[in-house]
Amino acid sequence: MAVYTEVSDEELLTFLARYELGALLSCKGIAEGVENSNYFLHLESGYFILTLYEKRVAEQDLPFFLSLMEHLSAQGVSCPLPVKDREGKALGRLVGRPAAIVTFLEGYAVQHPNASNCAALGESMARFHLAGAGFGLRRANALSLDGWRALFADHEHEADGVEPGMGALIAAELAALEESWPRDLPCGVIHADLFPDNVFFLGERVSGLIDFYFACCDAFAYDLAISFNAWCFDADWTYIPAKGRALVQAYQRIRPLDAREISAFPVLLRGAALRFLLTRFVDALSVPEGALVRPKDPREYLAKLKFHKGTSHVRDYDLEL
Amino acid sequence: MAVYTEVSDEELLTFLARYELGALLSCKGIAEGVENSNYFLHLESGYFILTLYEKRVAEQDLPFFLSLMEHLSAQGVSCPLPVKDREGKALGRLVGRPAAIVTFLEGYAVQHPNASNCAALGESMARFHLAGAGFGLRRANALSLDGWRALFADHEHEADGVEPGMGALIAAELAALEESWPRDLPCGVIHADLFPDNVFFLGERVSGLIDFYFACCDAFAYDLAISFNAWCFDADWTYIPAKGRALVQAYQRIRPLDAREISAFPVLLRGAALRFLLTRFVDALSVPEGALVRPKDPREYLAKLKFHKGTSHVRDYDLEL
Repeated sequence: MAVYTEVSDEELLTFLARYELGALLSCKGIAEGVENSNYFLHLESGYFILTLYEKRVAEQDLPFFLSLMEHLSAQGVSCPLPVKDREGKALGRLVGRPAAIVTFLEGYAVQHPNASNCAALGESMARFHLAGAGFGLRRANALSLDGWRALFADHEHEADGVEPGMGALIAAELAALEESWPRDLPCGVIHADLFPDNVFFLGERVSGLIDFYFACCDAFAYDLAISFNAWCFDADWTYIPAKGRALVQAYQRIRPLDAREISAFPVLLRGAALRFLLTRFVDALSVPEGALVRPKDPREYLAKLKFHKGTSHVRDYDLEL
Repeated sequence: MAVYTEVSDEELLTFLARYELGALLSCKGIAEGVENSNYFLHLESGYFILTLYEKRVAEQDLPFFLSLMEHLSAQGVSCPLPVKDREGKALGRLVGRPAAIVTFLEGYAVQHPNASNCAALGESMARFHLAGAGFGLRRANALSLDGWRALFADHEHEADGVEPGMGALIAAELAALEESWPRDLPCGVIHADLFPDNVFFLGERVSGLIDFYFACCDAFAYDLAISFNAWCFDADWTYIPAKGRALVQAYQRIRPLDAREISAFPVLLRGAALRFLLTRFVDALSVPEGALVRPKDPREYLAKLKFHKGTSHVRDYDLEL
């Protein structure tokens, strides 16, 4: 949950005057999103989300994220659509921060996804991957292998505070992944953070995807691996094959994985587990003053990484590919 | 801001099934209210707020608060209206906590009220005081003189940590107020927490009052004193006579203060300042684990208390009564 920046009514009214959205009827800070401050807005013309981008989102990346949401909406992928002001700009400034208004997306996050939810996600993700094809902007994945190495170097000495031996385990894993990381997989725009928080459902149906602030250009199968780790384990961090099968098979019905992607999948799962282990571990060390955020438990991803280290082949996941 | 209790989609859907409000379309935790967990709900039948009552609200008081909102709505005072389930109950249980759904109230809080806002509040508060007349339930003010004494006794030794000398000042003030506190003023249902956060505006007009969880039976003029302290000082804690006049004169146009209320007003202002000094001071000492709340600065009310100690007569406030 997060509202890092308080917006006064005066500042908000001045900001809204730039748009043709009608009078302000209601504004409430919402406890959603870890990176930015988000407000629910009711204006005469409808319901919107106002986002103030905090330090962790690089300002130069915002045009990529906002244009991507526009592109995806135009391609029929349900996601928030940035609203333009009278000058045609989607990005403004509020309380000294970059700020944007996007349309409100109905739906709600599913806290404990079942296999049917996993299948719905698989289909949505594959459609998202296909829809990104014509998108013109590029953004490298700052949180891929090189990024992990740099993040770990800064905090290696603190790793054993999470669990004795974690520092050595991560160091060995980084070395192994630098050897085995696949470089020739089909790439395109990926979401890179399709956790259950960022996928809205209405009943059994995915109503839309949100929070594109880690989106980048990388391997499609790596995106699938990130969600596999986030969706296909139980609350006690145990892998559930029925969920893994549901996710991957539904994905394949829309965008079949090729042989390289399938054989690389176990390595991608290890990398995806390491990526979230590292960021959760570092986040837990450095919750900023006044952030009002509960850090997520890094040990969840340590457990998942250990599970993946115990597998050697995609067969071990019972995916029935 | 506060969402103390996380509600899963499964728990929410089970809870909502008790109501005739249609399918769930959206649910977002909102960063509003310090005492309880609040969620914005979009259901097929409209927009609502779901509140989970946390420990600080005594469960036996909830029927008073919820019935009061019903009574006030029926009397034309704009406030959230509790929604009843199929069995006619406004109060349910969710995640082990008492929980209620109320209608969504449009409007937004004004962070820096001007004199016109103060006048609008004065009129609304007077109408609220009159509308409470026929309300049948009673609740004593747990945070009046006796409550302050008890609160201070538990934390007296920590008071000088806020500012040297604060302990002695509060002790002297308690003794003085126990001598001079008026006992014969017109009483009825008061809100007891009409801070700017709890008064919604649409433009210049008050659109409604929220957060009745300190409401109780006490002197009307004490309610006015609480809001006077909260609304009629500047951001640097300086008293602004134009705001004080606007508030009190607008109140008087709807419900004229009698001579006893006017002469007691300076003492009520001191008491109201002491009450919020004490609760802010104690709250700042004991922010509960995981509360994700920023405590409010007790020194604001120390400054206001000192200001009131320097006055001796209602004349000193330039109210032109």
